[in-house]
Amino acid sequence: MSASAYDGLCRHFQQIAHFEHFSALGDWDQATMMPVGGGEARSEAMATLAGHIHALKTAPWLAEALDKARAEAQNDDERANLREMAHQYRQATAVPQSLVEAKTLAGYRCENAWREQRRANDWQGFKPKLEEVIRLTREEAQCRSQALGMTPYDTLLDKFEPGVTQAMLDNTFGELKNWLPELIAEVTDLQLGQAVPQLSGHYPIPAQEALGREVMTLLGFDFNQGRLDVSNHPFCGGVPGDVRLTTRYDSNNFSSALMGVIHETGHARYEQGLPKAWRGQPGGLARSMGLHESQSLFFEMQLAGSEAFLGLLSPLINRHLGLQLSAEGLARIYSRVNPGLIRVDADEVTYPCHILLRYEAEKAMVNGSLEVADLPDFWSTQMQTLLGINTDGNYRDGCMQDIHWTLGELGYFPSYTLGAMVASQLRYALEAELDSSLDSLLEQGRLADVFAWLERNIWSRGSLLQTDDLIQAATGKPLSGRYLERHLRSRYLGE
Amino acid sequence: MSASAYDGLCRHFQQIAHFEHFSALGDWDQATMMPVGGGEARSEAMATLAGHIHALKTAPWLAEALDKARAEAQNDDERANLREMAHQYRQATAVPQSLVEAKTLAGYRCENAWREQRRANDWQGFKPKLEEVIRLTREEAQCRSQALGMTPYDTLLDKFEPGVTQAMLDNTFGELKNWLPELIAEVTDLQLGQAVPQLSGHYPIPAQEALGREVMTLLGFDFNQGRLDVSNHPFCGGVPGDVRLTTRYDSNNFSSALMGVIHETGHARYEQGLPKAWRGQPGGLARSMGLHESQSLFFEMQLAGSEAFLGLLSPLINRHLGLQLSAEGLARIYSRVNPGLIRVDADEVTYPCHILLRYEAEKAMVNGSLEVADLPDFWSTQMQTLLGINTDGNYRDGCMQDIHWTLGELGYFPSYTLGAMVASQLRYALEAELDSSLDSLLEQGRLADVFAWLERNIWSRGSLLQTDDLIQAATGKPLSGRYLERHLRSRYLGE
Repeated sequence: MSASAYDGLCRHFQQIAHFEHFSALGDWDQATMMPVGGGEARSEAMATLAGHIHALKTAPWLAEALDKARAEAQNDDERANLREMAHQYRQATAVPQSLVEAKTLAGYRCENAWREQRRANDWQGFKPKLEEVIRLTREEAQCRSQALGMTPYDTLLDKFEPGVTQAMLDNTFGELKNWLPELIAEVTDLQLGQAVPQLSGHYPIPAQEALGREVMTLLGFDFNQGRLDVSNHPFCGGVPGDVRLTTRYDSNNFSSALMGVIHETGHARYEQGLPKAWRGQPGGLARSMGLHESQSLFFEMQLAGSEAFLGLLSPLINRHLGLQLSAEGLARIYSRVNPGLIRVDADEVTYPCHILLRYEAEKAMVNGSLEVADLPDFWSTQMQTLLGINTDGNYRDGCMQDIHWTLGELGYFPSYTLGAMVASQLRYALEAELDSSLDSLLEQGRLADVFAWLERNIWSRGSLLQTDDLIQAATGKPLSGRYLERHLRSRYLGE
Repeated sequence: MSASAYDGLCRHFQQIAHFEHFSALGDWDQATMMPVGGGEARSEAMATLAGHIHALKTAPWLAEALDKARAEAQNDDERANLREMAHQYRQATAVPQSLVEAKTLAGYRCENAWREQRRANDWQGFKPKLEEVIRLTREEAQCRSQALGMTPYDTLLDKFEPGVTQAMLDNTFGELKNWLPELIAEVTDLQLGQAVPQLSGHYPIPAQEALGREVMTLLGFDFNQGRLDVSNHPFCGGVPGDVRLTTRYDSNNFSSALMGVIHETGHARYEQGLPKAWRGQPGGLARSMGLHESQSLFFEMQLAGSEAFLGLLSPLINRHLGLQLSAEGLARIYSRVNPGLIRVDADEVTYPCHILLRYEAEKAMVNGSLEVADLPDFWSTQMQTLLGINTDGNYRDGCMQDIHWTLGELGYFPSYTLGAMVASQLRYALEAELDSSLDSLLEQGRLADVFAWLERNIWSRGSLLQTDDLIQAATGKPLSGRYLERHLRSRYLGE
């Protein structure tokens, strides 16, 4: 039987989770269902809710209760839960409630305006709204920096990726820059003469949606515990027990929606697989956004990029869309490396370039060396350097393409590339443990074994281990970028 | 410039409205979007939210602030807003927070179970969940009775219809019982030999939905400020600025969904037409559920029951559903009086019988003279007496057909018949003021004048007048049931 300080804290954080339930619902609804006229009332309500959650997380009695509970803790899991509570408490107390409310209000207003402004390529209309969000994000980073004794940008990274710092990323991403540009050049050279099946055609949206649902079911998504809907920008939201993912359809291109669905299903299975006994407790949450992206990228890149999986996928695609694609043809399509404008549609080889650009931009915006007004020029220059693409004047497919900054979520983007690294490392560990390549497992019909491995090693562990320990426990090694390089060289260069 | 006690109260009630925003969103989502697996987490979150709203409404500083603000109030509108704040405060302080949370939890659990159990006609499964809700509702009524000095059932009526008592309803409904049974007999006799166009056929749901949307637009619904969706039980929810109504489709019968849409659009226009300057304040809310039902029934019965309106409706029905119905044929269909099992599908002549049954049942359940276990027998006996229909064993179309009691909303049903009375009285007043019958107005294309009258006299007034004063101001007379009788005798017997 646990002691009372700990129980009191658990009840308090369960209450917080109940309010966060509505925050998740409001987010999802705003992106999928809400009519434009509902935007202002929603933004104000979300700000009040964020303020209240902040007040609960900074309740003055928490510090003493945490101390007391630490002394009483019965086991490692309780200690882990307390560690996560204390982390949330420290994070919250670093920022005043008024700033939380102001930033939430500005963020939702910016996101609401962005929907139409992105469609209209209206940078001039969007700019002042983003400037307000960046101004408040800088203020937030300053407050956090003073309270936490970290650099402003590090405090933002810490929100999404506890323990990760700019110094570590500069190092990790620096290594990446040593081999990635050359790899892209090698792969594009190699693929230059290869024929790829053309996918142009008309694919009715209801057929695409039915295909997406069947693929989600193949991937083990439980529709009694979640939904699939449409939004401008694909995401996975909701709460464990009711996980809601979205995609968007292009009737001339089924691939973008389908790969979006597979990606988000990776997020969804992580959420659906979190430990039920820890629901509502900080220790039961997904470990970090990098771990989250590792699951979505495992599904989208490791699984769906393998020819064996495409052998499962092609009959579904052919049946729903009236095509006659082979697994091998699909593999040629999905392994095509082709520098493009849009991050979420990028192949896995050029994808890190999109992240490097955003990482440099957000660091500079946080430390004040890049102003929002100069962001389009920065973007265009970087895209030219990294991928040889000019984005002058094309804001909607340039710096207005993502939703993260509209909400003030600076510090998130590095998680995608960390996730790609973790996903590769997990695959090699899984293959070693199951003594079989992923392709062989799939050919043997052992998809369930793959999910069981992920569930055992990642999903069911919630936040009970810290990131480094979780990766070490799952793979026997600390996080390293060399598995991503090895994976890319193997898949794209046959090395 | 208002004084500070008043401003402080306005800010506080605005905050409450922000939390009620999520309560409305959670309700709507639960009925329209939520997968079954989300039910338990939603129920718990709704209970916590209800408890928090209750805590805000019972904040200890409110009593003194209300006193101070009353002394400072600048005008009648401010005084009205303070009166509504004080009413909410009194209502909330009558019940402990723990009971609010327990009843909310039991109510949402019961509603979640009801969805499947109603479909399966599973009374035995449903009974214990409803018993728990009724137990907590009785406890609530007892608490309220002690605090407010009213009878237990009167305190429940007061939640939905401030100022209305059982004594008044016994009197009003007693008068109704004097003339209604005979009227039903006369009308059914008269209609006995009349031929009615048959509506049996197959009506694809997408076509029904497109028809519903076009009819909503005809009725002035603003889709930038609301939505139409599907739920088991039609309702109108959401918040002003984002009003969400639902219907349910039967591919063999378009009429039920269409009339549901028209009914809910009446609710929706009331919400969309509430005074914008008073949004978030108690004075800006819809006056009462009876007033709300008066608007939905004005749309469904007064408007959509008139042959002139059916002249606007028939071309839309014919175009969307490939029919060739005349306005006169539709009028014969919609004026058909036919005692049936389902309240929401009832004609306006037999509708009050469904309310009389529920009124007697809920009074008896609150005062303890009727137990949930005996409800099906009570239902069957009453249906036999009032409408000559046997419901033995048919729980899904009997006492399990409505959603209200699952949520513990006893005291709501009388509002429907009060609403029907108000709707008739409003129509005669509107006709007198515009010096033209409703039919003539519609024939002259003056539908907008009808809405403008309702907006001026009802919608835009929010809760700034009390119910009696609002009805007096709109119609020049106190509420009376004789306009409903006059309307029914005129429409159905040509008197």
